[in-house]
Amino acid sequence: MKPLNIGLIGYGFMGRTHSNGYKRANDFFPELQQRPVLKAVCGRNAEKVQAFADQWQYESIETDWKALIARKDIDVIDICTPNNSHAEIAIAAAEAGKMILCEKPLALNPEQGERMCEAVEKAGVPNMVWYNYRRVPAITMAKQLIDEGRLGKIYHYRSNFLQDWTISEDLPQGGAALWRLDAAAAGSGVTGDLLAHCIDAALWLNGSIKDVTAMTETFVKERMHSETGKVEPVSIDDACSFMCHFQNGSLGLFESTRYARGHKALFTLEINGHDASLRWDLHDLHRLEIFDNNDEGRLRGWRSVHVSDHSGDQPYMDKWWVPGLQIGYEHTFVHQVADFIAALDKGETAHPNFRDALETQQVCDAVLSSAKEGLWKNV
Amino acid sequence: MKPLNIGLIGYGFMGRTHSNGYKRANDFFPELQQRPVLKAVCGRNAEKVQAFADQWQYESIETDWKALIARKDIDVIDICTPNNSHAEIAIAAAEAGKMILCEKPLALNPEQGERMCEAVEKAGVPNMVWYNYRRVPAITMAKQLIDEGRLGKIYHYRSNFLQDWTISEDLPQGGAALWRLDAAAAGSGVTGDLLAHCIDAALWLNGSIKDVTAMTETFVKERMHSETGKVEPVSIDDACSFMCHFQNGSLGLFESTRYARGHKALFTLEINGHDASLRWDLHDLHRLEIFDNNDEGRLRGWRSVHVSDHSGDQPYMDKWWVPGLQIGYEHTFVHQVADFIAALDKGETAHPNFRDALETQQVCDAVLSSAKEGLWKNV
Amino acid sequence: MKPLNIGLIGYGFMGRTHSNGYKRANDFFPELQQRPVLKAVCGRNAEKVQAFADQWQYESIETDWKALIARKDIDVIDICTPNNSHAEIAIAAAEAGKMILCEKPLALNPEQGERMCEAVEKAGVPNMVWYNYRRVPAITMAKQLIDEGRLGKIYHYRSNFLQDWTISEDLPQGGAALWRLDAAAAGSGVTGDLLAHCIDAALWLNGSIKDVTAMTETFVKERMHSETGKVEPVSIDDACSFMCHFQNGSLGLFESTRYARGHKALFTLEINGHDASLRWDLHDLHRLEIFDNNDEGRLRGWRSVHVSDHSGDQPYMDKWWVPGLQIGYEHTFVHQVADFIAALDKGETAHPNFRDALETQQVCDAVLSSAKEGLWKNV
Amino acid sequence: MKPLNIGLIGYGFMGRTHSNGYKRANDFFPELQQRPVLKAVCGRNAEKVQAFADQWQYESIETDWKALIARKDIDVIDICTPNNSHAEIAIAAAEAGKMILCEKPLALNPEQGERMCEAVEKAGVPNMVWYNYRRVPAITMAKQLIDEGRLGKIYHYRSNFLQDWTISEDLPQGGAALWRLDAAAAGSGVTGDLLAHCIDAALWLNGSIKDVTAMTETFVKERMHSETGKVEPVSIDDACSFMCHFQNGSLGLFESTRYARGHKALFTLEINGHDASLRWDLHDLHRLEIFDNNDEGRLRGWRSVHVSDHSGDQPYMDKWWVPGLQIGYEHTFVHQVADFIAALDKGETAHPNFRDALETQQVCDAVLSSAKEGLWKNV
Repeated sequence: MKPLNIGLIGYGFMGRTHSNGYKRANDFFPELQQRPVLKAVCGRNAEKVQAFADQWQYESIETDWKALIARKDIDVIDICTPNNSHAEIAIAAAEAGKMILCEKPLALNPEQGERMCEAVEKAGVPNMVWYNYRRVPAITMAKQLIDEGRLGKIYHYRSNFLQDWTISEDLPQGGAALWRLDAAAAGSGVTGDLLAHCIDAALWLNGSIKDVTAMTETFVKERMHSETGKVEPVSIDDACSFMCHFQNGSLGLFESTRYARGHKALFTLEINGHDASLRWDLHDLHRLEIFDNNDEGRLRGWRSVHVSDHSGDQPYMDKWWVPGLQIGYEHTFVHQVADFIAALDKGETAHPNFRDALETQQVCDAVLSSAKEGLWKNV
Repeated sequence: MKPLNIGLIGYGFMGRTHSNGYKRANDFFPELQQRPVLKAVCGRNAEKVQAFADQWQYESIETDWKALIARKDIDVIDICTPNNSHAEIAIAAAEAGKMILCEKPLALNPEQGERMCEAVEKAGVPNMVWYNYRRVPAITMAKQLIDEGRLGKIYHYRSNFLQDWTISEDLPQGGAALWRLDAAAAGSGVTGDLLAHCIDAALWLNGSIKDVTAMTETFVKERMHSETGKVEPVSIDDACSFMCHFQNGSLGLFESTRYARGHKALFTLEINGHDASLRWDLHDLHRLEIFDNNDEGRLRGWRSVHVSDHSGDQPYMDKWWVPGLQIGYEHTFVHQVADFIAALDKGETAHPNFRDALETQQVCDAVLSSAKEGLWKNV
Repeated sequence: MKPLNIGLIGYGFMGRTHSNGYKRANDFFPELQQRPVLKAVCGRNAEKVQAFADQWQYESIETDWKALIARKDIDVIDICTPNNSHAEIAIAAAEAGKMILCEKPLALNPEQGERMCEAVEKAGVPNMVWYNYRRVPAITMAKQLIDEGRLGKIYHYRSNFLQDWTISEDLPQGGAALWRLDAAAAGSGVTGDLLAHCIDAALWLNGSIKDVTAMTETFVKERMHSETGKVEPVSIDDACSFMCHFQNGSLGLFESTRYARGHKALFTLEINGHDASLRWDLHDLHRLEIFDNNDEGRLRGWRSVHVSDHSGDQPYMDKWWVPGLQIGYEHTFVHQVADFIAALDKGETAHPNFRDALETQQVCDAVLSSAKEGLWKNV
Repeated sequence: MKPLNIGLIGYGFMGRTHSNGYKRANDFFPELQQRPVLKAVCGRNAEKVQAFADQWQYESIETDWKALIARKDIDVIDICTPNNSHAEIAIAAAEAGKMILCEKPLALNPEQGERMCEAVEKAGVPNMVWYNYRRVPAITMAKQLIDEGRLGKIYHYRSNFLQDWTISEDLPQGGAALWRLDAAAAGSGVTGDLLAHCIDAALWLNGSIKDVTAMTETFVKERMHSETGKVEPVSIDDACSFMCHFQNGSLGLFESTRYARGHKALFTLEINGHDASLRWDLHDLHRLEIFDNNDEGRLRGWRSVHVSDHSGDQPYMDKWWVPGLQIGYEHTFVHQVADFIAALDKGETAHPNFRDALETQQVCDAVLSSAKEGLWKNV
């Protein structure tokens, strides 16, 4: 078993999900020919990063990401830092010849994203972006069904990502914990954080988007900054929705917000085709619902498929337990690690790579621009 | 259009559901050749029965059911009185040559029921019992599917009827409103009131029951009587469950109670066969769920059929609205009236007739006897 | 009991729902002081209208709506004709001093609608529009909760009306059965047919809409006309979605289509407020879902309220059956008849009246105009 | 961090779930003071056990469980073998002073179980049985709510465990893969395999069971034996249901089968109390449903609590991800490992221990005995 030495930059929520992915992939995907080794984790606060390393059994720590990239014993740089540092780190890592796994969204804007793509393509290094939801088994199966033509011509695609965690006006903004509320660090609010997931899945499942018209809102206009203690204007979008045309002629409707009381992480998608429709939501992610118009008339109905039955060739499920026993959120990262390594083993390209993620970035950019100007925008 | 003159005895909750059925059947079933006419309603309290007649547009009232039966202008006697008067009224009505529609359960016990059957059979009068749930479109469709052999060999049948309205110890027993809590009037508690519905559906859908073992409980041992004002022992079963063998080799599991907090009228049934399973519940009665093992493996799942789509040959639904628009509880009585008249029009026998309902009575009797003795009992 | 003489114009699907409402209201609302009498039904085809009259027990027929309006024995004109005749009939009826109940949408456009409002206001005749869904008990209860301030500041309102009945390219357009696919008769496609219901409910529940941006699509560009037999361009919108700002600062997202495979009449609405959220859908219309942020933290969740329990002061439900037993689609019309008569009895104004419905017409107009021009439009 | 050296006997499905538990506990429970070390795995087939060791990173293998028990470097013996070897191994391990984690059911019968209890109690070694479902967060929270008295007096407890994997008559019995169909190896069929889980949860949540009446069935009477190739009688129960009285006066209803088409692992439980009811099912294990009669009348309904929100003090959830992101089946084993170590750290007793599991064994024994004799049996 060949080691694949991981250098992780950032150790927040995503640092945990990725670390778990590295540690578990080979237990469940024994055919992989490389095994991730948690070589080093990097963060600016030595004490905190050491505590993380101890908990997750990283072999060493770094406090300067440039030092990490310079290490010869690191094969993969995994970028889990706030969005405004992705480009600089990724380009440096590419120039150092490292493979790169980068958290989403790819960058602050398409220009940065384009430079990142050029850097990895020039260096010829494997690269991937953590749009993890593609690897929910139910969504992977949706992709299979669409590719098999089961849905027929597509008429409608709709997707939401609804949360409610920023409703309180007392919630501060900025700093290590709340950088997602700071446009300087995050680039945007819900658009880059939540809609980006909806868009990545949509482009994968339904193809490219031609044009968009969008609406954004910032419900709470000022919040105390967690570092300065001062009340400052809120720079991000609290909510964003958009309508669009896909290249295949279907209509799209997207919405994200952090002000939908009662929804914690309600990422949903629904696709209506001539022959069948599909829908899914993250709150019960182990189910895919399908309506098949080819079913006998009086018995047509939405079928709730519990995606836990490996006997039925459901994606990934032969790796886990037995029918009826569900897996959850974290498994998407295990699957992504496994697929990345499997692609390395075979010399293939894993997706979504930087170039795939750039298209999502371009849609986000058109959405933000449309919302600002109140006009339809081409992507 | 030939009139079918109705004489209703009793004007409580069931008096309302039946009256509504008579008034609406011809609006929605225009092919019927007879139209019910609300000729007379009968009850002991003249003032109350007149108020009911005014509200529902009955032409006249009676205060003595024998006088009603004696009237020449009455074709059908509809019995909506407490269970302990069914036998006497039905036998008298049969002897007078009237058609009879009798509320369920048929009688207090199988002996009474047998005498009732003999009376209507000797008189040759059309007769039917208001086991209305057979005519929920979803249940009627379940019957069709079973008869077509879609489920294959049956392994399991389970059915519940759960309510929560008698939990309070302050609820009195007896009298006009609460005779269902008085064994002298009702014969039994939940067994005759609720389980009888479960059993009627089971016998219709899955065939005869061979033997049973049952358990009953009376949670609140004493209640004030609403007429005497005295605290008296409670004579009925508050809860009853039983296990059984069906003639077809399948196993049955039944439960009813009025102490299941949160359930108002949760009548459910589920049938598991070799090839497919079905389930249904009264709280969303317009849906039938089906799992078909012949579906493609990875896409198998429980399908929720919204039984509102007449284009699909769903029973009764071509009579109502358009796909997606649900009907409710009261429609089962409209359907029963329509089917009764259609059978008259064609000279056929409508079901469930007294003889069908007697079998349910016999199962109830075996259940109560088993619970009393703690032994398995043959039906 | 005073008679209220009804003259119905049109006898299609809506003619049936209204007739049923008239016939049943007094059975369930005995406190009403007037009882509808089915005096006359009017349609151009004498044979067909007579068959309808026979089925529903109308006393007489007319083949010219002007003759109907001229009759002295008619109190209420009920307009169930295609949309392009609403204005002419309503204005004539108002001038004749008749009360008017008009199917939705009010008119082909706001200009017609304004003239209709002026006519009924000048004549001083009671008037109402059949936006029946306001009287689904779950929606009426949603209105009560909002008016009580239970939701707090509103952030989001979203509503869909999804169908799938026009997907087939073989479906013809136009004529008596399919006038909804003909813009000349219907004014628009899904916008006036389906979105109008969403908008009426939204204006009632969440207040006025300031501005909109919309997108429409006609998926099937040509269809055979059912009367001419010729293939002609399709003039209606098959799908329409829009985003908007409400006056109260909340964001709206609306969508309707007849190309959402698997949805027959999926009218949904969801409202997210600071303190609570509500959601509802027509496919299970007897349920209201509520998430209340004031519930204890670890036990917060979406509560599915089965609106069938009169003991809980749920709107309208004391008129029907007992807890757990659901009512359905048609009952909304019974409620509307009852509320109209109750308002007459008390000398009050029933809603939605023509003036209320005009605001919905204005939103529809802004939506269609925005879709055409690709720009935000003020209402 | 102190090592806790694990010696695993058996490497089938449960060997995987336990190994995963050991490897992950400290990543998510950093407060633990001991870390499991996968010291050795034991099985009779050296080649297969080595492959398992390689996949899961066990340091060594053994092919004789007695040799494993004799090793000084093993702290904990984990028994994952067929049920007929639990007693012998556990007693030997206790005599060797090892801590013991034993798969359920504890033994073949209460006599064996009693001897096992005596052995561990005499040796004074920590011991636990893998009734993992107690540690589904939703079930742990149910226990908290009951202990807080939220449900009031309990009237009903019902629980199912329904599967469909043995319906095919072509499925063989016996051998390494299918020992669960062989009574000599398994002790019983669904009773020990599935009902045991239902009973363990019931005893924990609702207290002791007084008496039972049961029914069993073997639908497929003969199957080919996978080792001998001969068609032999099937010795196990394919289905088992029972009714019972709990010590607290409530009624119980339990059912398990492997012939319920459409259910893969539908473990459900529902408890009805005077003040509130709870229900849960394994197919959506991250949800707990609660009906609270203290809610406002018109807004009472079943609340679906998505147990993923650590802010609400939901058990275990602060260890995992963020609200809205579900965990699954395998996490129950991680929780059990963590709780076992936490108890060791504090010198406390972890549950369910052997003595707790013996009570479940006694109920199973009464159930099987009742089914055989057709009589009520005391536990």
